[in-house]
Amino acid sequence: MRFDIVTLFPDCFNSVLNSGLLGKALAKQIAEVHLVNPRDFTTDKHRKVDDEPYGGGVGMLMKPEPIFNAVESLPTLPRREIILMSPQGQTINQPLLKELVTNYDQLVVICGHYEGVDERVLHLVTREVSLGDFILTGGEIPAMALINGVVRLIPGTVAKTESLTAESFEEGLLDYPQYTRPANFRGLKVPDVLLSGNHAAIARWRYEQQIQRTRDRRPDLLDKWKQGAGGKGAEGAGGAGEARENNNS
Amino acid sequence: MRFDIVTLFPDCFNSVLNSGLLGKALAKQIAEVHLVNPRDFTTDKHRKVDDEPYGGGVGMLMKPEPIFNAVESLPTLPRREIILMSPQGQTINQPLLKELVTNYDQLVVICGHYEGVDERVLHLVTREVSLGDFILTGGEIPAMALINGVVRLIPGTVAKTESLTAESFEEGLLDYPQYTRPANFRGLKVPDVLLSGNHAAIARWRYEQQIQRTRDRRPDLLDKWKQGAGGKGAEGAGGAGEARENNNS
Repeated sequence: MRFDIVTLFPDCFNSVLNSGLLGKALAKQIAEVHLVNPRDFTTDKHRKVDDEPYGGGVGMLMKPEPIFNAVESLPTLPRREIILMSPQGQTINQPLLKELVTNYDQLVVICGHYEGVDERVLHLVTREVSLGDFILTGGEIPAMALINGVVRLIPGTVAKTESLTAESFEEGLLDYPQYTRPANFRGLKVPDVLLSGNHAAIARWRYEQQIQRTRDRRPDLLDKWKQGAGGKGAEGAGGAGEARENNNS
Repeated sequence: MRFDIVTLFPDCFNSVLNSGLLGKALAKQIAEVHLVNPRDFTTDKHRKVDDEPYGGGVGMLMKPEPIFNAVESLPTLPRREIILMSPQGQTINQPLLKELVTNYDQLVVICGHYEGVDERVLHLVTREVSLGDFILTGGEIPAMALINGVVRLIPGTVAKTESLTAESFEEGLLDYPQYTRPANFRGLKVPDVLLSGNHAAIARWRYEQQIQRTRDRRPDLLDKWKQGAGGKGAEGAGGAGEARENNNS
């Protein structure tokens, strides 16, 4: 997977690209990340990347030309998506990350800054993606999240493939509680069942905990899970939202 | 605001702490960020921070002791929140960021890693926060997002306070399209109304665009907005979800 990050703050990415999973994936050449700065594609002597909004308002907008020029300078792989990180976009979730890793060889990620970008940049963009319903100072941290989440799904980056599936959101439920040594930490004990060696009982306990925890914390996810393929079997006890359909579309 | 980030990968934060808004806020001493590594609080000679999960399963869990020890080494300001970044937590949104900046002087942010953290760490934690319904390799990027979003709301970090309010989510609607020079870029023109100098017409156009865009892209937000204080007036044309209450609770 090739990433091209279009950003006014390329230095911001240094540490994240050199450490952890992304650092390893880059070293193994499983992924490559290129940074491109719109400021290098300005044509005026002041290298101006922002300007005041038409119609008034506070703050500065990113101008269209330097972004167009930066993106047009990039090589084009056959399966390419050009993403603008923007609070107006579709919210990142696990299905989106899977779609990106499956369908594309190149992700161009444009990081907005200042008060936003000139609307005409959308003519260049094939998808707008949002980190969530909150405001940050720029698209750099959202871009890092997107890249980390996608790279993690590329085969070869996470040691065991089971680690990818037995996790929150992959099954539509929150994760079950997990414990490691010591069995007794300051009087806080690991649940007996996990020490029992009874694998069927452990699997049952974990499944019940997933459902219980999802019901307590994220009833919206539980409802979705009940309606989807995940809800086909199980779920004994009643609770919030009894409506249940097997809608496998 | 004091941040204490508990992380196995403190280096990961270097670039983000030294650039952009956060770099400026730290230089102006509007905020301070301290990094603390649980590995420095291990008591065995291998400095072991992770171990296998009880009951079986792939991946490694963060052990409880090094995290407890790391957090207990920190100074305690009167209004302190201890946050675990976790996919099981409450999803970051703008009201949460406002609550944090308003109610606390110190945010301790624990970044999970590997397959997760020992459940007993929750005895230490006052709040679990999630970046969204997707999986990353660790809590570092989510912590950066939280810190950026909070610091941005501290008075003195963003130049004009109007910049904070006239934005997506602050009013419950997506932002309107914005344009800057040139008025004609490769044949793509700025809407005439924005060049008209008619401020009332511009304000009306922007408001209509906000509602239209929110309806098209995020009908969930539009419904919430109609039900809340934001929907008190206006909204001429019909559309998705006519139910409207003035629930100002």
